[in-house]
Parts: sequence; C-alpha cells; structure tokens
Amino acid sequence: MSAVSVSHPRNGSVPVTADPMAGESLPFVGPRLHARVAVLGASGYTGQEFARLCLAHPGLQLSLLVSREFAGRPGAEVLPGFDPRHASLPHVVAPDMLTELLAEDAFDTLVACLPHGEWRELATRQPALTEAAIRIVDLSSDHRDGADGYAYGLPEAFRGALAGATRIANPGCYPTAATLALLPVAEVGALTERVTISALSGVSGAGRGPKLSTSFVELDGGAAFYQVGESHAHVAEIERNLSRLAGTHVSPAFAPQLAPMARGILLTASVELAQPLTPEDAHALYAKRYAAEPFVRVLDAGEFPETRRVRGSNRCDVAVTTVHAGRTLIAMAAIDNLVKGAAGQAVQNLNVLLGWPEDWGLPLNGNPW
Amino acid sequence: MSAVSVSHPRNGSVPVTADPMAGESLPFVGPRLHARVAVLGASGYTGQEFARLCLAHPGLQLSLLVSREFAGRPGAEVLPGFDPRHASLPHVVAPDMLTELLAEDAFDTLVACLPHGEWRELATRQPALTEAAIRIVDLSSDHRDGADGYAYGLPEAFRGALAGATRIANPGCYPTAATLALLPVAEVGALTERVTISALSGVSGAGRGPKLSTSFVELDGGAAFYQVGESHAHVAEIERNLSRLAGTHVSPAFAPQLAPMARGILLTASVELAQPLTPEDAHALYAKRYAAEPFVRVLDAGEFPETRRVRGSNRCDVAVTTVHAGRTLIAMAAIDNLVKGAAGQAVQNLNVLLGWPEDWGLPLNGNPW
Amino acid sequence: MSAVSVSHPRNGSVPVTADPMAGESLPFVGPRLHARVAVLGASGYTGQEFARLCLAHPGLQLSLLVSREFAGRPGAEVLPGFDPRHASLPHVVAPDMLTELLAEDAFDTLVACLPHGEWRELATRQPALTEAAIRIVDLSSDHRDGADGYAYGLPEAFRGALAGATRIANPGCYPTAATLALLPVAEVGALTERVTISALSGVSGAGRGPKLSTSFVELDGGAAFYQVGESHAHVAEIERNLSRLAGTHVSPAFAPQLAPMARGILLTASVELAQPLTPEDAHALYAKRYAAEPFVRVLDAGEFPETRRVRGSNRCDVAVTTVHAGRTLIAMAAIDNLVKGAAGQAVQNLNVLLGWPEDWGLPLNGNPW
Amino acid sequence: MSAVSVSHPRNGSVPVTADPMAGESLPFVGPRLHARVAVLGASGYTGQEFARLCLAHPGLQLSLLVSREFAGRPGAEVLPGFDPRHASLPHVVAPDMLTELLAEDAFDTLVACLPHGEWRELATRQPALTEAAIRIVDLSSDHRDGADGYAYGLPEAFRGALAGATRIANPGCYPTAATLALLPVAEVGALTERVTISALSGVSGAGRGPKLSTSFVELDGGAAFYQVGESHAHVAEIERNLSRLAGTHVSPAFAPQLAPMARGILLTASVELAQPLTPEDAHALYAKRYAAEPFVRVLDAGEFPETRRVRGSNRCDVAVTTVHAGRTLIAMAAIDNLVKGAAGQAVQNLNVLLGWPEDWGLPLNGNPW
Repeated sequence: MSAVSVSHPRNGSVPVTADPMAGESLPFVGPRLHARVAVLGASGYTGQEFARLCLAHPGLQLSLLVSREFAGRPGAEVLPGFDPRHASLPHVVAPDMLTELLAEDAFDTLVACLPHGEWRELATRQPALTEAAIRIVDLSSDHRDGADGYAYGLPEAFRGALAGATRIANPGCYPTAATLALLPVAEVGALTERVTISALSGVSGAGRGPKLSTSFVELDGGAAFYQVGESHAHVAEIERNLSRLAGTHVSPAFAPQLAPMARGILLTASVELAQPLTPEDAHALYAKRYAAEPFVRVLDAGEFPETRRVRGSNRCDVAVTTVHAGRTLIAMAAIDNLVKGAAGQAVQNLNVLLGWPEDWGLPLNGNPW
Repeated sequence: MSAVSVSHPRNGSVPVTADPMAGESLPFVGPRLHARVAVLGASGYTGQEFARLCLAHPGLQLSLLVSREFAGRPGAEVLPGFDPRHASLPHVVAPDMLTELLAEDAFDTLVACLPHGEWRELATRQPALTEAAIRIVDLSSDHRDGADGYAYGLPEAFRGALAGATRIANPGCYPTAATLALLPVAEVGALTERVTISALSGVSGAGRGPKLSTSFVELDGGAAFYQVGESHAHVAEIERNLSRLAGTHVSPAFAPQLAPMARGILLTASVELAQPLTPEDAHALYAKRYAAEPFVRVLDAGEFPETRRVRGSNRCDVAVTTVHAGRTLIAMAAIDNLVKGAAGQAVQNLNVLLGWPEDWGLPLNGNPW
Repeated sequence: MSAVSVSHPRNGSVPVTADPMAGESLPFVGPRLHARVAVLGASGYTGQEFARLCLAHPGLQLSLLVSREFAGRPGAEVLPGFDPRHASLPHVVAPDMLTELLAEDAFDTLVACLPHGEWRELATRQPALTEAAIRIVDLSSDHRDGADGYAYGLPEAFRGALAGATRIANPGCYPTAATLALLPVAEVGALTERVTISALSGVSGAGRGPKLSTSFVELDGGAAFYQVGESHAHVAEIERNLSRLAGTHVSPAFAPQLAPMARGILLTASVELAQPLTPEDAHALYAKRYAAEPFVRVLDAGEFPETRRVRGSNRCDVAVTTVHAGRTLIAMAAIDNLVKGAAGQAVQNLNVLLGWPEDWGLPLNGNPW
Repeated sequence: MSAVSVSHPRNGSVPVTADPMAGESLPFVGPRLHARVAVLGASGYTGQEFARLCLAHPGLQLSLLVSREFAGRPGAEVLPGFDPRHASLPHVVAPDMLTELLAEDAFDTLVACLPHGEWRELATRQPALTEAAIRIVDLSSDHRDGADGYAYGLPEAFRGALAGATRIANPGCYPTAATLALLPVAEVGALTERVTISALSGVSGAGRGPKLSTSFVELDGGAAFYQVGESHAHVAEIERNLSRLAGTHVSPAFAPQLAPMARGILLTASVELAQPLTPEDAHALYAKRYAAEPFVRVLDAGEFPETRRVRGSNRCDVAVTTVHAGRTLIAMAAIDNLVKGAAGQAVQNLNVLLGWPEDWGLPLNGNPW
C-alpha cells in the first residue's frame, strides 16, 4: 500500500487509499493519483457543469470533451464563459472516436452526460467501452434500476453499495432531493405507504435542446405544473429509493412544477407517520442522521431551504417539521439540480470510487446572486 | 321593480335587479346604475389593480383615489403606466379627508386595499365611515373571521352568505386558491382531517413596501420556503373555509414558497380521502360542481394549471387527480394573486352586492406574456 | 354620405367617414362598420397579440384564425390563456384555404403575422388574395421598402402617404422606436448624417420558434449584443425612414441587445446636431411636434422612458436632451415591441385605412406588473 | 531578497517580489506571504463578493468581517449560502472596534466596501486607521479624484501610477467598462471630444439597501433609463479617465439603464474619430493593446459581448468596429459589476500592491448559468 497523501481543505493531509481500478501489483502513485476523464455530452448543461467541476478538482483531469455537435472545435466552445486564451482545454472529439481513444489509453474514466437512452445506445455500438476496465458514471436514467450491473450512486443513502463498484448510475435531480428529504424517517421505519411530493425545478433540468416549452417568453414570469400523478419518469426512482430505505413498499405521488429560474430544486414532501413525532423529535432525528454528512445540512427550526443558498454547491439543505399533532411530517429540501442533482454528485461518486475524501474538490458553499 | 337592463358581454342584455343599498322607494335607475368607489391604498399593488379593473368596469366609477403618501398628486402618479395626458383620473386625496368627502356624498362604496390593520384603525378614527349606508370591501385579513359583521366574500364557496350584505371581507390569495382547489371534495364530505398544501406565490403578494426580502437581487433566479407549518397567517383562514365547507374540522398544513415572478399563485393540495375515488370520478365531481362557475375552470385530464394562463384574469384554473389507488386526492390550482386573489374578487363581490351579473367587467381570459 | 357615428372613449360620438374599400354606390352602414379580419400566423407572438387587440376592438371582427400548425383546432388553442368555455373564437383554418374562404366572402381584411418571406410566398401561390379588393397589412419586413405597392404604415411619421392605401407594410419594432425618437429633429433638418443607436429588445421580438439563443437558461440573468454595425436587417429600414424625414441621407449605426424580459424595446439614439440646441429647446421641439399624437408621449425633463410603463399599450414614451454644449442630441424611446412595435400599430393602420379614429380600440395606458 | 516562490495556475512557480509594505530589513517570508484583510461593509453585495474572492485567494487571508448591522454574529450570516458547519469564518465585528483591532495587529489590509461617504467619515472618526502603515482599498467613489493621496486603481489603464501606492481608490463599475472600451483609441489620440455611452446595469449595482426602485416587482420584466445626461455620478470619473488617457479634454454623455438581472454591465460607446479607421484596423489596434492583459479579452470580428460570459469572472470582454465609412467607432464591453467592476478589481489592485502576479486568485472564466 502506498503512503501517498494529498492535501484536503477540511481534513488536512489525507492518505490516498488504493484505486479500485488499479491491480494489486500496481502501487497507486504519481500520475495515478489522477483519474483521466472523458466527458460525453460536454455541451449540455450537466456536461458543462461536470467539466467545470472537473477543472477545479485536484484529482480529476479533464482529458476528453466529447460531443457530436461540436466535434473538432476548440474546447472553449462547449464551455460558454471560458476565455479561449487561457483555458488549456482539449479539443472536442466525436463519440465515434471513443473506442480508438480508449485503445490509446486516452482516458480511464467515462462520465456520460447524455439524454436518456443515448449512452446505452452508444455502448451497444462500441462494446469495447463497457468491456474495458474503466470507471463509468451514467447521468441518464437508463441504469438507475440497476440494469447492466450499475450501482446507484446516492452515497448518503446507499454508500455501502458503492464499495468496489466501477459502474455508477447517477441519481436524478428530483429523486436526490426527495430521497434526502425523507431518508431519516424512512430508515427508522416511521414512514407509511402514502407519500406526497410537490417540487419546483429550474429550467436547466429540462436539458439544453431548444423546445417551445423551455423558451424564455413561455417561462418568464410564471410557474406551471407538468406530468402530475404517479407517471413522471422520476416517480419509479423515488419509489425504489424510499422502499429500499424503508424496507417496505412506499408509493410516492408527485407534482412537479417548472419555475422561472435557471437552476434549483425546491421540494416539499408530506408523509403520514406510523407514530406521532413532535417537531423537535423530528428535527433531532434528522440532525443526528446527517451530522456526519458534509453535503446535507439540516436547518435549524424556523429556517427554511432556499435554492439560492445552495446554488453552485453540492449541498442539500433540509428542513423538517411535523403538523397535525405530530401525525404528518413535512420535509423540505433544496438542491442545485446541476450540482448535487447531477454533475456534483457524479464527482462525489467518483471520489468514492477512487477512495478519495468524498467531498474532495466539491463546493460546500453556495453563491446566491 | 325597475325594468332597467344593461349590456353584458356573455349574456346579452341583462336586467338589473334591485340595488341592496337603495331603499324600497328608490327605483334603481339612471345614475344609480353606477357605484361611486373610493379606493384606499391606491398606490399599492392591489389598489392599483383594483383601480385598473374599476376603470374598465361598466358599472363601477372610480370616484376617489386615496393614499396618504400621494395625497394631492395627480391620479396618474399612483398608477404607473397611465398616460397623464389622457387619463381622466381624480386627484389623490388623503385618508383624513374621507369623513368630509362622505358628507359631500363623494362616494357610496369604499374598497380598502391597505396593509393588515390599517383599515380597522382608520375606521376607528373616523367612525362615520362605518356608520354610513355605504358598501365596504376590506381586502385585508382583519375581518375574514366575520368580525364587525363582515361577510366573507368567496362567492363560489359561500355565495348565499352574501345576500343582503354591505360589508365584505375579501379573501386572501392563498385561501382563495386553497379553498377552490378543495371545495368540491370538502362539500361532499370526502375530506378527512389532514390536508397538506404546498404553494408558490409571486412577489407582489408581499406588498409594495420596500424590504430586503423582496428586493430583486435577493429573489431573481431562486425560490424559497417561508413560515412553513401551521402558523402562517393564512392557515387559520384556510382552516375556517374548509371546515365550514366540510361541516367538520379540517386541519391544513401549509408550505408557502416565494418564486421569482411578479404575479401568480400555484398550489398543490393533497388530502386523504374517506372513500377511494378514481381519477375519473374525482374529475367528474369537480367538473360538475364548477360547471356553472364562470371563474373556475376545471382542466381536462392531462392538463395542468399554469399561472401565466390566468395572468390578468379573474379565473382560477383547477386540476384534480387521485393516486394511491384512489385514497389520496391531489388538487392543483392557479390564480393571479392580484386579481382572483385580491382586486378581481373584490369587483366580483361588488357585482354580487349590487345585483349585477357576477362576471360583469371582469376578464375571463389571461394574458400569458 | 352616411351619418353613421360610433362611440369613442376619448372623443365621444364620432362620425364614421367613408370606408375606402367601399365603392361609391355602397353607403357605409350597418355591418360594414365592421372589418372582418383574417389573422395569418395566429399562433405566433404578434399573431396572438393582434387577435387579442382585435377581440377588444369595437370595429374589427376576428373572422379567421389562420395557422398551418394548428389548422382544425379550436381557436383557444392558439391563444394561451383563453378560457375555451367562454371564448367564442373561430376554429383555426389552414393557409391553403384562404382563396376558397375569400371566394365565400369570409373576410375582407388580411393581417399577415408571419415570419419574413412567408406572406410574400403565400401570396405568390394564391394570387387571388392580392388581386382581391381586400385590405392587407403585412407585419413582416418584406414590403417595407414599398415593394408591390405597399404603403409604409408609421402614421406619426408618414400619415399622408396612407391616404387611400389598401396595402400596408407594418414597420419593424426597432425602426418604430428609432424613427419616433428622432422624427422631430429630422423633420426640422437639424440632423447630420451620423446617427448612432443602441437598443435593448425583449425576447418576444425574436419570434416563437424554439431556438437555443432564445431558451430560458441562455437568457435569464444576462444581456448580450448581437449583429452590431450597419448590417442588421432593421438598419436599412431606419436609414430609409430617417433619410425620408430629413430629406437628406442619414446613416444609422446600430447596436441591438437582447435583455432578459419578454416584451419591450428601450432605445438610445445619439446624433450630432447641425446647430446647437439647448435641452429646453430640444424638449420644446419634441413636445410641440407630438402634442396631437395620442400614441407618443414626450416625458417631462428629468423623466425617462421605461418599458414597463408602456407594456401592453400602443404608446411610445420619448425623452430628449442635449449634451456637449448642445451639439449632441440624445433621444430615448420605449415601446412594447408586440403592440406599438407590431400588432397595435397594425390596428392603428387599419383604423387609418377604415377612416376610424386612429386610436380606436387601442390601449393608451400600460400595465407595468 | 527572499527566494520565496508561489504556485501560479498560468505561470507555474512564481517568485514573490518584495512586499511594498514590508521594510527593507524584513525579508518577505513565511506568514508575510499573506495579507490579513479586514472587509468593511461585509454584508453588502460587494463586501460579500470580496469576502468570497478573498477566501479562494492563496495570498489574502480574510481576517476580519466588519459590519455595523451584523456585529457579534457568526461570519456565515453575512455570507448567504455559506454552510456555517464548515465555514471557518471570523465573527463579525463592529466598525467602532477597528482602531483597537489595529493596535492588536489583527489586520494589515483594509478593504472598504461601504456606501459612498461612509469610509471617509469612519476614517475621520478613527484617525489611527489612515495613519497606520496598512494597505487601504476604498471601493466607494470618495477618493477616485485622487483626494487624500489615493491612487486610482485601474491597472490596465494606469498601472504605472500604482507603483509604491498603499492607498487605492477602486474604480466604479460603469467607469471600468467605459474606460476599457475606449482606452486603445484614446491612447493613440484618435478620440475627439464627443463621446456617447449607453449602458445597462444589473440591479446589484444599486446596493443592498431596500428601495422601491430595486424591488422585484418594479424591475422584473422591464428595463428603464435613469439619470441620463452629463450629471450621473459616474460621468466625472469617466471624463477624468478618458481625458487622462487621451491627453486632451473628452466629454462623455451617458445614458445608464437598469435591466432585470442581478449582475452585469453591458456598454456601448460611440465616438467620432479624428481619422477614419477601418473595422479591421480598429480591431487590430485593440487586439494589440490588450494582448498582454489577462483580464481584457478582445472578441473576434462577428462576436459580441454578453454579460453571462463574464459572470463571476474578473474579465472584461470588448468588441470594436467602425461605421460611417470609418469615421465613427463603436466599442462594446461586458463586465460583472461585482467582480471586475468592484471586488475582483480590488483583489487585482491588492495583487499589484503586494507584488504578486496580477491575476493571482482571480477567476478568468465566467459561469453563464
């Protein structure tokens, strides 16, 4: 075992444990401290955000920007805001090149920030990608049911299941917020079957492809429900998570709403409790459960989540109270859908896979304006 | 009974029934067709909106603009956007002048668009105002509990209670949306005690007084909870309404949220049903109950409320479904908080008081952009 | 000549002069008071706005909603916000049906709210439309150079040229604001050749077709230049207008910008003056020139245009001052790009064509929130 | 002279030159690499932004957060978005404590992010602060005319004047953008006297004190001029800068506008040239002048500034062209008013004062969403 250590902002010097991708005989030293990442779908909102976090991360090296639309262009073109004079970014490559680039050892980690279905299809066309001993994080919904051996990457809820994993299905933004909002009460068995969730999302959650429904004029100055009921794509994922945590079937009803903001999810969950709980006890339960989690902050009584306060950070702010003489619990959560709800959580999962401190290179503070 | 009739956009020529303010011996003709309105708090958002609706109303005459801050200024100054060249608006008068103006018969209807507590205080200082045989609509929360003989003016829910009234407490914006969202299921006795409501409001709901919490930079690009639980000022009003409709105690938990938009309320209510109801039966119940209500539109299955679609109108768009095998009902509603949630409802109440068609002079269509 | 008169909000009873479309032998009475309008491109932002204004207009009758995409659908579907229960709107018809509908006398006025080039193309395919004795208003840029005998419909600047016209090219939004901002100084010959114009536009000016550049996330929270220089499509139109007014060649440079708002144009024009002018004299020149124009309001010294104050109205608010010891004039203007910059001006032009009061049925006051 | 070097993201290892505050006999080593900063007005938008940049800076140490309103509170309370669990922030102290804290050597650098007039007043009440051998950066407009020996801190324009300075007047946001937009053409003597500037600002430029004019409802969805002419507070500063660069009197007219966004300035400057210049020559002049400036990016022909692209960065994006056959130059600029227009420029100035790489710890890339 190597004695390598790395500097960590909160924990000081941190010993780096074995890279799960590295064989027994390969001591984990020098350049292997870095994972060399290929970002697929680099021009989308989650792809851009992942690239941004990757560039600021001490261990992740942005090796490949992959985009069909921008193939052959300078890297700064997929990252609006980057100054092309300074940004030492790789040129963008086409997805078709991946097998060849893999053979050249151009990357050892693949992060797929593609619309649902596209990574799965690409992997079918280029089987070498999934056969290789590389790490893969899929941000689409395709593998969140565990298909193809992917582990579900919500560390706060299922950290144990990530041990030794090399394939990660990154959770959806709504399911991340919903699961973290109800996790403590689910784990202690206090949840009954019926859960109702109402949540707002910023528009970046709908992806970057131009649509009338995400056009500025159609959204500015108003808010709207969409796909309310039990049929939204995220409902099955929330149901799976809560049922797994509760050890019994939990059925979420879901009322998603689009709000006129670029980023952020603000979520209300209401659940009937098996046993009444005072607001104080509910708060204590949550505070204790999340005490050691750097990315979940339980707000004090009288404080409530705001999306602005977690903007740009990998944090989930949670508040909890009970009403109806303790028989109904109301949990609230705020995340940045592009960070804790997507790219930041992917980095967190990579930190876990690589044996690094879980919060390495991830912003803990949000920037509200 | 007079044979006077007035032109009505939807119903053609409409016979005008007796003015409840007019004595038996006074046939209701000629100039009495008009109510002469004094708007208190004319420079606030609801005061401006009421003045705007009043100017477009065939029966209401904007006789007095009242504002402490703008007293003595031209009327166009309290109505930003008005062209002072054309607007034949009265000059603004100070609240202190009201008793004197009443003595001069300058108005016969008083609409108080003041912060909570201020109309009550003013009425105490100028007792002639409440002793006079004028119509009064109070848009604050002061009289919504029925204090001082005010009738609660939510016609769709409690139309009967308005017969003969001359004092109206105009409902709050959240309670209007919440009550209309749950009215049909409450009336048929299907509601159990526990109701949970999550709702977004546009910023105009917080009034026009400058506050850090309603400053542009603090709100743009984000959403936030505030005062979640059972303690928000509107909770008692919702509780009163739902309990009155259900004939039994109903206890609402409430999670209000501020969204980055000027106008609009978007509300989700979830309730446990006493008896399971299919989504189709729930929809049929709502559609039947609201069939004759011009201002409540029950959306078809698969359609969901949007605040933009009711913007500027006096309409409440409602959708309903059930989940959890019919045991949980989810009702959604959208209103414009300044219209159906305030000034438009005040006009609707005046239409009722004056025996006019209830939708007279009120916009049925919204303008989304 | 008939003695028909109509009620007019500002002028009382107004005698209706001859309909230019009506032959000598046809006295202008009864139903001919109404123009029966076909709106092409009814689902776009300007088409919707025109339909809305048309429905509120006492003389224009919305006879046909025309849209390729929505053909066969209920009219309320192209007008988001309309309550389909009340709105007595015609069903949408396909553009291909127009010749047939013309033969059936289904309309006598055609208002084309189509992307540039489309009306011209449609007219080529259905020659009966342009051969018929109907009124035509084209809101695209295709005929603003006078092609095909269209008169340029900016009444405040070129009212005389509209006499007897039946084909109108409706001005662009930027050119409307720019021309009204500089008209008084151009007409008196005080303009030198070099004019510089900087202007913001709301996003609805870019049309309703989904584009990445008009997506919510790409626009919210920021502003951007586009197509700066002498090549923007609107530059030739501004150049034509100012040169025509000045009687000499005027060359505008133009810096258009997109701001995160749905509606509104805010424009700054700076020009070198042939002779110095004090701020007071510049103001007096503007005030005198526009004194009789209902839709142009010259603000008092110290007041400045705001897009919110003209929102929803057909008004252009103008302010003017001089700097550099009177040698440079700065003129500012605000309009609602969908109203005075498009649909409202089309109504104004129809009012002129039909011999009606020019401000008939057009909002003079804006609604800022 | 010490051989200390620090790691620098663009330049690799960088030798640290003498600290101008350090005496000859004090070698600049170890802890003296760090400046210990007191931030005055820490709860305002620029104060927060400076604190944020300071925390991410390798050489600046955030030693004191100073605020009258928040004195005695945990530091996280003046920095919304910070997680109080992790943030190792000092408690907030009252301004009255500064003299005492100075005596305790609690800071060696003072950055005043106060409303205009307040730092000057505070310095008068606590004379020890200005008598001490500490570095002072004043972000208000009080010392931008050179009063009290302050050097004007716009390094790209007047870097030479900062040599040996210990008192810096940090430029205003509009003047920063205006000066950088016109610097190259001013320096070569091509500017004539008359300059016209039109510019948009985000709302954070108006400070954090609650005002009706910066309330959400009053600003959302619209744009407005304010204080147009030659009298805006920033005009004298722009005039001073351009005249100093041109070596002759330059008189700017200024049309500032408020746009519905939190951050960003977007500026158009038009100037008559002494000699005609082709667009290509103008671009070449700008590109050459700014080639070595990390924080000024001259965009390629056909590209235009956007505030989103510089959001959060210390960059100024500039574009230039000429029109009117080369006789009029149009220059455009975009900055983040809180960074290059305020807090970032303060850091840049401190980097200069301390002999550090000028771009040390400052973001070069913007984050558009």
